[in-house]
Amino acid sequence: MRMSLKEKLHEVVFEAETPAGKAFDVILLIAILTSIGVVILESVPSYRERYGQLFFIFEWIITIAFTVEYLVRLYCVRRPVQYAVSAYGIIDFFSLAPTYLSVIIPGAQSLIAIRALRLLRVFRILKLVHFVKEANVLWDALAHSRHKITIFFGTVLTLVLIMGTTMYLIEGAENGFTSIPLSIYWAIVTMTTVGYGDLTPKTTLGMTFSSFIMILGYAIIAVPTGIVSSEIAQATKRHTNTISCPSCTKEGHNLDASYCRFCGAKL
Amino acid sequence: MRMSLKEKLHEVVFEAETPAGKAFDVILLIAILTSIGVVILESVPSYRERYGQLFFIFEWIITIAFTVEYLVRLYCVRRPVQYAVSAYGIIDFFSLAPTYLSVIIPGAQSLIAIRALRLLRVFRILKLVHFVKEANVLWDALAHSRHKITIFFGTVLTLVLIMGTTMYLIEGAENGFTSIPLSIYWAIVTMTTVGYGDLTPKTTLGMTFSSFIMILGYAIIAVPTGIVSSEIAQATKRHTNTISCPSCTKEGHNLDASYCRFCGAKL
Amino acid sequence: MRMSLKEKLHEVVFEAETPAGKAFDVILLIAILTSIGVVILESVPSYRERYGQLFFIFEWIITIAFTVEYLVRLYCVRRPVQYAVSAYGIIDFFSLAPTYLSVIIPGAQSLIAIRALRLLRVFRILKLVHFVKEANVLWDALAHSRHKITIFFGTVLTLVLIMGTTMYLIEGAENGFTSIPLSIYWAIVTMTTVGYGDLTPKTTLGMTFSSFIMILGYAIIAVPTGIVSSEIAQATKRHTNTISCPSCTKEGHNLDASYCRFCGAKL
Amino acid sequence: MRMSLKEKLHEVVFEAETPAGKAFDVILLIAILTSIGVVILESVPSYRERYGQLFFIFEWIITIAFTVEYLVRLYCVRRPVQYAVSAYGIIDFFSLAPTYLSVIIPGAQSLIAIRALRLLRVFRILKLVHFVKEANVLWDALAHSRHKITIFFGTVLTLVLIMGTTMYLIEGAENGFTSIPLSIYWAIVTMTTVGYGDLTPKTTLGMTFSSFIMILGYAIIAVPTGIVSSEIAQATKRHTNTISCPSCTKEGHNLDASYCRFCGAKL
Repeated sequence: MRMSLKEKLHEVVFEAETPAGKAFDVILLIAILTSIGVVILESVPSYRERYGQLFFIFEWIITIAFTVEYLVRLYCVRRPVQYAVSAYGIIDFFSLAPTYLSVIIPGAQSLIAIRALRLLRVFRILKLVHFVKEANVLWDALAHSRHKITIFFGTVLTLVLIMGTTMYLIEGAENGFTSIPLSIYWAIVTMTTVGYGDLTPKTTLGMTFSSFIMILGYAIIAVPTGIVSSEIAQATKRHTNTISCPSCTKEGHNLDASYCRFCGAKL
Repeated sequence: MRMSLKEKLHEVVFEAETPAGKAFDVILLIAILTSIGVVILESVPSYRERYGQLFFIFEWIITIAFTVEYLVRLYCVRRPVQYAVSAYGIIDFFSLAPTYLSVIIPGAQSLIAIRALRLLRVFRILKLVHFVKEANVLWDALAHSRHKITIFFGTVLTLVLIMGTTMYLIEGAENGFTSIPLSIYWAIVTMTTVGYGDLTPKTTLGMTFSSFIMILGYAIIAVPTGIVSSEIAQATKRHTNTISCPSCTKEGHNLDASYCRFCGAKL
Repeated sequence: MRMSLKEKLHEVVFEAETPAGKAFDVILLIAILTSIGVVILESVPSYRERYGQLFFIFEWIITIAFTVEYLVRLYCVRRPVQYAVSAYGIIDFFSLAPTYLSVIIPGAQSLIAIRALRLLRVFRILKLVHFVKEANVLWDALAHSRHKITIFFGTVLTLVLIMGTTMYLIEGAENGFTSIPLSIYWAIVTMTTVGYGDLTPKTTLGMTFSSFIMILGYAIIAVPTGIVSSEIAQATKRHTNTISCPSCTKEGHNLDASYCRFCGAKL
Repeated sequence: MRMSLKEKLHEVVFEAETPAGKAFDVILLIAILTSIGVVILESVPSYRERYGQLFFIFEWIITIAFTVEYLVRLYCVRRPVQYAVSAYGIIDFFSLAPTYLSVIIPGAQSLIAIRALRLLRVFRILKLVHFVKEANVLWDALAHSRHKITIFFGTVLTLVLIMGTTMYLIEGAENGFTSIPLSIYWAIVTMTTVGYGDLTPKTTLGMTFSSFIMILGYAIIAVPTGIVSSEIAQATKRHTNTISCPSCTKEGHNLDASYCRFCGAKL
């Protein structure tokens, strides 16, 4: 039984099990990484001056190649509209758009602004997520710690809000804390232990309060770590056992279980 | 059986199970967040100049609304005094006070000082804690690690005291370490890995000693993290399940288990 | 049976179980903290100028009180020499010495140098360790992770040495990395994520290498945390079970043990 | 039965069990550390000027000693070629080469460049790894977390790429973010909480975006910590014991257990 061209293409473009599909994925991966590399190099003024012409040519070659890939995907997928409106379809489209737009809309100034949009191609790297297969345990752990992490961030944001406001009252505009948003920015810089030093307390009270924030931030980092540690340990346990019940087919039994915990049948 | 107005109000204001109570909570939440947002924006000089009048009007609308809410709470609660002296009652009161005080006590200079008090309304955000229900595991873990965390902080404070003093002796006033409190502030900035850079060691001995403090701080952060990790794991276990099998008395069943995984009996 | 004065004093000074002993400990604790507070305040130039006389008087009162305490300890302890050469005996002695030395050795310049020695009284705070009783689990965990922590620090020091040297070769004296020791100091500041910013990479290669060090430091902090977390979990388990074998009196049995693992007797 | 000289030398140089072998290892260890110490001190301008002659002599003594050691190793090892191309053989060779090269290739300027190569001797410290024996549990844990750590770093690098690009668009060259590579460097400095402060956001949007990156970096550090914690706990378990009771077949005995803690049988 011979496959139609459409089926063949679908196998190459969307599946990774066949040798052709694997080769396609690797080539695409290299193309994406090279394309991102060029965008990054182009942003360096000295390189742009010297190799601007080269970057321009490469830009068009890669854009046309990605356009062909996009059209092939649309052609061979069973439901083209569903692909086009999916996250990957939208990313694929918007990573092509800027280059074409720079032709349609001419003019010196606007071009620079549009050139910036081209940087969106960086988001193509998100495609790399496709290539990882062992991220499940990590993802499972993070998904389970979702609620606790949300509570933690809510608490941190509240603390940062209160601390920023307090610091604005303590130091005031004369010491550089000109507004509450700026003071909140300072509180975040301090509590996350980043500590740029672009804004530092000057008064004794401010220093005392800062010390308190720092020690708090130092202690608070223990909480998300504890949450994730505990969840990863549990997710690892869950993933090591993948026996499904012979009677009800449900999975998720503990390693030392002799009976299915859903229907009571012997495992 | 019809409820009195007082009972109805109590249900709306204090309970979150009924549709009306839920709606009230959501509206209150939005009002608090908006009110905080306005206080923050008002602190930015450029916004204050342009929209000062608007902020003033909004300030009074929200204050009157919160006053009505406060009076309603006092009216419909079973024990008004107990509410008034509770943490939430006091926060509610002090988030109203500044606006009214700014009227009673006139005068240009003092007004600015009082305006600062108004920022206390930020503490209203603490009310948000009401809205989280799943913080129990985290709270339980932190409560259990209370003693260990206290010992840890005692040790950190002692270390910081000794290190700050030593650094004051090493670097001295000519390198910016003008007093022991300032040197302790530096020790905290360094050990918590914040590292502003507003005060840095200049002498070779000072740099060597700083390196030692940094590596110590780097290692010491492992301790609270270890404490909290261990406690969260235990708190999760405690909260997960405490049902013991009626047939074999063994514990450790998952929350969704219907049958004992050791003997197969129905739980 | 009446106790001799010596026995009574011993009970008060060295034991904390009797009401008198407890009161003595609390008073001593307050005296130590106050004395440290005065040393800290005295280091602030503005306070020293204004309250110098007061600080001087207080200094002598506290020194005489501590001297009396030291002599009483020597008198009532069973083996005075053993106490005098113990860690606490030495700390007690050296926290008294500076004040007396400042009298014997006169002269302006030398006085300032000796005044610095007085700061050693800060080490008195180490006595506070006496007052904590629940530090056992933490201490046990740290003692057990001793070997792993040593290996970890050996690795970190080697990394820092290699990285500092590499950075000295990359950036060189013209970008502020004037010597290998300074570059190692920079590597420590960077890898521990302190990041003062007093010394930063200027060349592209230096920035690339720094980025690598930062990400490594970010990852490496996971190791001591993992070690301590794991040990605290085990130490907690060990300390929750303190049953000693009725046959061989050895402790350290697991919670689910039915038989002594040393002699095989039933627990 | 008497050993040949070759066998005797092999025992001393390559084995650490005999007293002579142990003594050789300790002497070698001291020689390596001293040699590194000299290289470090030589890099300090003031020391180089004063003790340059002394450093030069010491340099040659240590180089000749290490050369003799290298030749002895080649002589007494069973397969000299295999040693010469092994990691340690190559490190040993390259830590000798620079000193000899500085003689063969004369000339003032080139000498300084070659002197830099001599710093490679620092890599000799890697030999210290030989001396640690208890690094197995740590190594095992890191080896098992290999895949997860790779996924984690892939995610971090992607995030840093996207964030650096976004920040380049937000702040632009006028605020110091002159190119994407520089902005990526900034993103790494910020997300790893190093925070030099050599490059900081100036616009409100940039500050808001930075705050988001900081909080993300603060949370993300929990992931590698969680991975390593979980793996160390498992590696400790694996290394602790794998003996099963000969009577009841149950596992999980401590290393120092002589009797099964479940049935009391001798292990």
